[in-house]
Amino acid sequence: MNRLQIIQANAFHSPKYGKIEFLENVLFCVDAKGVIQDIIHTDHPDYLQVLASAKEAGNLQTYPKGSYLLPGFIDLHVHAPQWPQAGVALDRPLYDWLNQCTFPLEAKYADLNFAREVYTDLVHQLLQRGTTTVLYFGSIHSDSCLELAKACIQQGQRGLVGKVVMDDPKQNPEYYRDSSTQEALAETERFILKMLELNQSAPQGVYPVVTPRFIPSCTDEALKGLGELAQKYDVHIQSHCSESDWEHEHVHTRFGKTDSQALHDFGLLGKKSVMAHCTFLGEDGAKLFAQTGTAIAHCPISNAYFGNSVLPTASLQKLGVDIGLGTDISGGFSPSLYDNLKQAVISSRMLEDGVDSTKPPEERGLADSRISIIEAFWHATTGGGKALSLPIGQFKKEFAFDAQVVQIDSQNKPYTMPDFGLFNSEEEILQKILYLATPQMIREVWVQGKKVYTNH
Amino acid sequence: MNRLQIIQANAFHSPKYGKIEFLENVLFCVDAKGVIQDIIHTDHPDYLQVLASAKEAGNLQTYPKGSYLLPGFIDLHVHAPQWPQAGVALDRPLYDWLNQCTFPLEAKYADLNFAREVYTDLVHQLLQRGTTTVLYFGSIHSDSCLELAKACIQQGQRGLVGKVVMDDPKQNPEYYRDSSTQEALAETERFILKMLELNQSAPQGVYPVVTPRFIPSCTDEALKGLGELAQKYDVHIQSHCSESDWEHEHVHTRFGKTDSQALHDFGLLGKKSVMAHCTFLGEDGAKLFAQTGTAIAHCPISNAYFGNSVLPTASLQKLGVDIGLGTDISGGFSPSLYDNLKQAVISSRMLEDGVDSTKPPEERGLADSRISIIEAFWHATTGGGKALSLPIGQFKKEFAFDAQVVQIDSQNKPYTMPDFGLFNSEEEILQKILYLATPQMIREVWVQGKKVYTNH
Ligand SMILES: [Zn+2]
Ligand SMILES: [Zn+2]
Repeated sequence: MNRLQIIQANAFHSPKYGKIEFLENVLFCVDAKGVIQDIIHTDHPDYLQVLASAKEAGNLQTYPKGSYLLPGFIDLHVHAPQWPQAGVALDRPLYDWLNQCTFPLEAKYADLNFAREVYTDLVHQLLQRGTTTVLYFGSIHSDSCLELAKACIQQGQRGLVGKVVMDDPKQNPEYYRDSSTQEALAETERFILKMLELNQSAPQGVYPVVTPRFIPSCTDEALKGLGELAQKYDVHIQSHCSESDWEHEHVHTRFGKTDSQALHDFGLLGKKSVMAHCTFLGEDGAKLFAQTGTAIAHCPISNAYFGNSVLPTASLQKLGVDIGLGTDISGGFSPSLYDNLKQAVISSRMLEDGVDSTKPPEERGLADSRISIIEAFWHATTGGGKALSLPIGQFKKEFAFDAQVVQIDSQNKPYTMPDFGLFNSEEEILQKILYLATPQMIREVWVQGKKVYTNH
Repeated sequence: MNRLQIIQANAFHSPKYGKIEFLENVLFCVDAKGVIQDIIHTDHPDYLQVLASAKEAGNLQTYPKGSYLLPGFIDLHVHAPQWPQAGVALDRPLYDWLNQCTFPLEAKYADLNFAREVYTDLVHQLLQRGTTTVLYFGSIHSDSCLELAKACIQQGQRGLVGKVVMDDPKQNPEYYRDSSTQEALAETERFILKMLELNQSAPQGVYPVVTPRFIPSCTDEALKGLGELAQKYDVHIQSHCSESDWEHEHVHTRFGKTDSQALHDFGLLGKKSVMAHCTFLGEDGAKLFAQTGTAIAHCPISNAYFGNSVLPTASLQKLGVDIGLGTDISGGFSPSLYDNLKQAVISSRMLEDGVDSTKPPEERGLADSRISIIEAFWHATTGGGKALSLPIGQFKKEFAFDAQVVQIDSQNKPYTMPDFGLFNSEEEILQKILYLATPQMIREVWVQGKKVYTNH
């Protein structure tokens, strides 16, 4: 038996949608592979003995009062090359935003040094906000995408990385597109193989992802070829789906079917597929997603800028669609899933109540649309793990030990959380953490049983 | 002439709606009263001499590269006694939220020690987020409200404080209401006089505010009496107006007129009046506000939970209504105006685009509703100053020197802002500060020429 690390802590997680479980002062037994072997509760007969022998062996980690572990957050949608542009240019129309800002920026990643500099910072910034697993869009440049994977390995983050394919000469600028369909597919395959090799040296996992930017930017041949590559190597797939009025129209004109149906027909939906946004998915699309096991990367901040509406999370959830959360850097300005958790709740309430006060209440909103902060927490953790079909997002035997340690008590001056002896039930403590934690309160981050970030 | 403090810094402000002004390496000359006497630009013939003599006299304050001054933020709506409950119970319906959580909590402020403990923390938390002026609702207890004013004085924040009036026995629980209308008015007058006395020892100003909770909680006699008191002492007035479907209905049934017209008829609108929310103000109400100089405290986070719609900021702005921003602790969970700035932009875009994807675009949203982050910045600063009719919110001669110092460069590890030599025009730097600054980047806060907070 491998030597175990023992971590004694209070922890919150949400194995069941809408419910929280509080693990009080438990012992997490984590093996050499970073996997949770056992979680020992205080009333277990072996508790004191395991604690004592870990202490003696010097492999016990404890935390001061006021510290709580949450599962590391899982960010299902980040455009890594867009990080320098986070927070700027959001007032521009989508077309200008893409062509004047985003594409020229992404084109710079032909330069590996630039890629290394930006990606090193991005991985660090996401980690320090409690995000332990990220599904990344890279740029079209395979080698730069490999730099992103290396930054993940170096800093211990679990990264799923895609070399972006955008090969249609009619839809993409000459300075930023795959030089041909054949090249796009060959580069994708080379990238997959390199990633599978890199993954050998990453206990937490770095995975290749087949990544057509979205249907409008790819030729039919590329989409078909990418579906075949995904199947051949059994790798993850990501793209954008049904994001805006414009995209919805484009695909319908081109194929006479919906975005989701077209993706399905190209072999791009499945258990390892994650599609960003999906605000215009509709009920048929939702059923197709549920049936194929395709997940949605819900990016509520970005949707407010570019999504033209709110994802009906509550009703999609009822239809059995897997949903996780994404920041969508830089369509979304924030690198924090905390910010997106909160916005998911806020947007859901605005969908329920409506936005235009000149309309009567019954025409204004869509009943039963709200989600709670606890449900959004599920999306950021358990839901993200399910979306990726990886054993992450919960504190559970056989799952990776990925955690963020949030310290809220007054020892952590100057950033504390109000208590005053009130509103301190388990659920209220978690609500306050999710609504009020500042980045500085995230004191440590662990991925795959390894402490990869500390701010104290 | 008084001895001047000289502060050499880069600064952003927005004297004109939608525009920013960048003050590069200027010298702020601040007199002993904390008022800006002059702002000397680098091309001014006296610049070097003023700089040199300040340095020699030891009254020069400088900042390292990557530091930017913004005007201190002005929060137009905070329920101080609700601070312990920030972030919790937001999933409850308004009625339960008020009666099971909020009123029992506010009733605790009969205890002066409890009030002192909470208010000391709240003032500190708001200051460290860059908020230099706050318009506070207290509880019904005058003496506790005076504790809040004292916390402001002690920590140097500019506070406008109201003893809440809610005297109608039919609308308020017995354990938490004014014991009679007469008592409510007498206590308000006593409170005003005590505050005017306290103000003598507060260079930054602590001001009394006439504060009917909202029309539904007050008798006609109380509303009338409060209007008279406000006029007698020429003090500020605050309340809630046209917040929800329910409130709108209540006032209409009782008076056969709108909330805004009823407030006007009780003498409660005017240049020193600030009304929270106003999501259902309507065009007539807007005209009445513009005509009387009444301002709106726009609380976009809170509105998503309790406002049943989005404030049409852009169109109200065009009608000439004064608008500032408020956190509405704890109907809004966040003590940060940064969070509300961002939500104001997000909500405005959701109003423009609509939220329900099953509707066609033309029925979904309300055209021309969006505001930019720069416009929201104006609301948090210049707009707030106009709302309160105080010389604050801008860097300008004869205005109070209220500032927050934001440091974004890499010396401020571990919380930095992406740059990479890109997107660093003046406007882009400000956008990044507004969208991405974490509380820890706010390194100092000044009120009325005095450094009242520092985190380094
Ligand atoms: Zn995207
Ligand atoms: Zn309020």
